[in-house]
Amino acid sequence: MAKGLPVVEIFGPTIQGEGAVAGMPTYFVRLGGCDYRCIWCDSMHAVDPYEWTKTATWMQPDEIITAIKALPEGPQLISLSGGNPAIWECMPLVQALHMANYKVCVETQASIFRPWLREADLVTLSPKPPSAGNVTKIDIVKKFLLQLTDLGPVAAPIKVVIKDNWDLEYANELAGEVGTVTSTMYLQPMNQHVNAEGDPSYEEMLSAYKDLITRAQDFPHLQNAIVLPQLHVLLWGNQRGV
Amino acid sequence: MAKGLPVVEIFGPTIQGEGAVAGMPTYFVRLGGCDYRCIWCDSMHAVDPYEWTKTATWMQPDEIITAIKALPEGPQLISLSGGNPAIWECMPLVQALHMANYKVCVETQASIFRPWLREADLVTLSPKPPSAGNVTKIDIVKKFLLQLTDLGPVAAPIKVVIKDNWDLEYANELAGEVGTVTSTMYLQPMNQHVNAEGDPSYEEMLSAYKDLITRAQDFPHLQNAIVLPQLHVLLWGNQRGV
Repeated sequence: MAKGLPVVEIFGPTIQGEGAVAGMPTYFVRLGGCDYRCIWCDSMHAVDPYEWTKTATWMQPDEIITAIKALPEGPQLISLSGGNPAIWECMPLVQALHMANYKVCVETQASIFRPWLREADLVTLSPKPPSAGNVTKIDIVKKFLLQLTDLGPVAAPIKVVIKDNWDLEYANELAGEVGTVTSTMYLQPMNQHVNAEGDPSYEEMLSAYKDLITRAQDFPHLQNAIVLPQLHVLLWGNQRGV
Repeated sequence: MAKGLPVVEIFGPTIQGEGAVAGMPTYFVRLGGCDYRCIWCDSMHAVDPYEWTKTATWMQPDEIITAIKALPEGPQLISLSGGNPAIWECMPLVQALHMANYKVCVETQASIFRPWLREADLVTLSPKPPSAGNVTKIDIVKKFLLQLTDLGPVAAPIKVVIKDNWDLEYANELAGEVGTVTSTMYLQPMNQHVNAEGDPSYEEMLSAYKDLITRAQDFPHLQNAIVLPQLHVLLWGNQRGV
């Protein structure tokens, strides 16, 4: 921890746009670095080492808290995102945030387990389906989930981004294996414009959303899966820092 | 129960568009009758007695379940709505739904408590703020919540529709009184087109949503309140039966 953690951006108050705490006011702390290179990654500035290593500020937990407190007054929830924050040792940060009276939710693809994740208030597992180009194997997700919930109850919803039918088949298999037992399953239509110019139109986003609601019903393990759009993209397009 | 319950509509599978289970696939069972006459009611066909008493079918629990099973195969969640379903004795229906392996979530303004509500899996309290024309007094909501959670844990989120600053002040006072202790608070921008011709535009809906996210941060007890749009209105406008 001598160097601290590589912080790419800290912003808020805004809302969490996805998954189990969608709509909940939060500050975001985004760390650089990722073990994956998803084709449709929407945070490549925190993933591509040529980019994030140039822009990140290495910060200690107390410096991160000072930076949050310098933002407009707001909620008690901190969303720790990336990249994949699980490539780093975040125990001191999570503990410092808790001492400062914040709750912490983390998003990770479930590829790497770290004991500090058990200290978080909520961990969203966001395993990557076939369309991402690098799949998070279902037995890896299962093992991660067992390690995470081993010592006590941690809220551990699973969120899968869906581009096509192979992704739905992946999510269905995953839900059959782990979803109904230990976790809630969320499906999210893929952001089609992530690597394109401009923002998706409302019509495109809501049409993909509507389509996913219908198609999920064809998969036996997804009939109870929660289907949510990316609220922040509906609100602000692909703009950063909101 | 000789007459059964006055069912105005049964439809699905669709998603729950609001509040704590937003995005969750569900069937809807809408009962006629309400003790309120909210100015911006979006289900007046189930509230106005001249209308619902003509269109409702009085059904026994087993008939309601048969009607659900006649719809396309889908989720295990039944949303029991109205009007205000709490004006009726729904214990036999909730028990029959549970026997048939469904989960039940109920929406009510918290004006009338009934013991059968304790049997539901989730009760969304949707007390009415000043802009509705009939306010649900805060001490009534508090009493309802205490009665509801008296014998055990029932998930009991509170959802307040927000039109203006008075509504935010109401929600803030409510959150200060009950929200942080026993329940999660949801804020929802008012559907501006409920009594108007046509559907609201995406721009209008998302601009009201964005505005509410920002304004809620000015109220000390609402800084952690979850702000969600009406997903079903984004998807389908004010169309019925979806």
